Amino acid sequence: MDKYFAKSELIPAVVQDAETNAVLMVAYMNKESLQKSLETGFTWFWSRSRNELWNKGASSGNLQKIVEIYSDCDDDTLLIKVIQQGEKVACHTGNYSCFYTKIM
Amino acid sequence: MDKYFAKSELIPAVVQDAETNAVLMVAYMNKESLQKSLETGFTWFWSRSRNELWNKGASSGNLQKIVEIYSDCDDDTLLIKVIQQGEKVACHTGNYSCFYTKIM
Repeated sequence: MDKYFAKSELIPAVVQDAETNAVLMVAYMNKESLQKSLETGFTWFWSRSRNELWNKGASSGNLQKIVEIYSDCDDDTLLIKVIQQGEKVACHTGNYSCFYTKIM
Repeated sequence: MDKYFAKSELIPAVVQDAETNAVLMVAYMNKESLQKSLETGFTWFWSRSRNELWNKGASSGNLQKIVEIYSDCDDDTLLIKVIQQGEKVACHTGNYSCFYTKIM
């Protein structure tokens, strides 16, 4: 587990819908949030704006149930495949995915 | 364009296969690499290990042709949908995707 945080305390985690394969969001994990994600089966991140551990969907009810987690070839990025609980809303704006703005 | 780099000179870019929707890799872009990607239609990144602009696939021939680019709700992450040219290999290890190690 430590190896993922050898270069940086925070690493990006790409969250992908396991059912549609859409990329929903990118958030950051520290070691504790990865541990809590592995233990609970739901996504936990580190909020860089609030400086706190963050159980995604805890307030909205739109939790992300983890199906699979992959690390990348450099062990410094994670890919988390999830099934969205509650509404199919990953973004705080109410959108299904955070990537709703097309720039090219 | 500047808004994407307001918080950080380097932002993560998730590269997704436009044909299969698989997540291939995460790399980092600075302003210049985003500009070159938009101008050329192929992916350019900033290599954090080599400290240089990096035209993905320039040496291997496995270029990534850009189909679409999306920014996220915070304007600090990009999603790039590509069609892989040459071999379908995004990872320097020879794998199709960098995310080939399952940890959960």
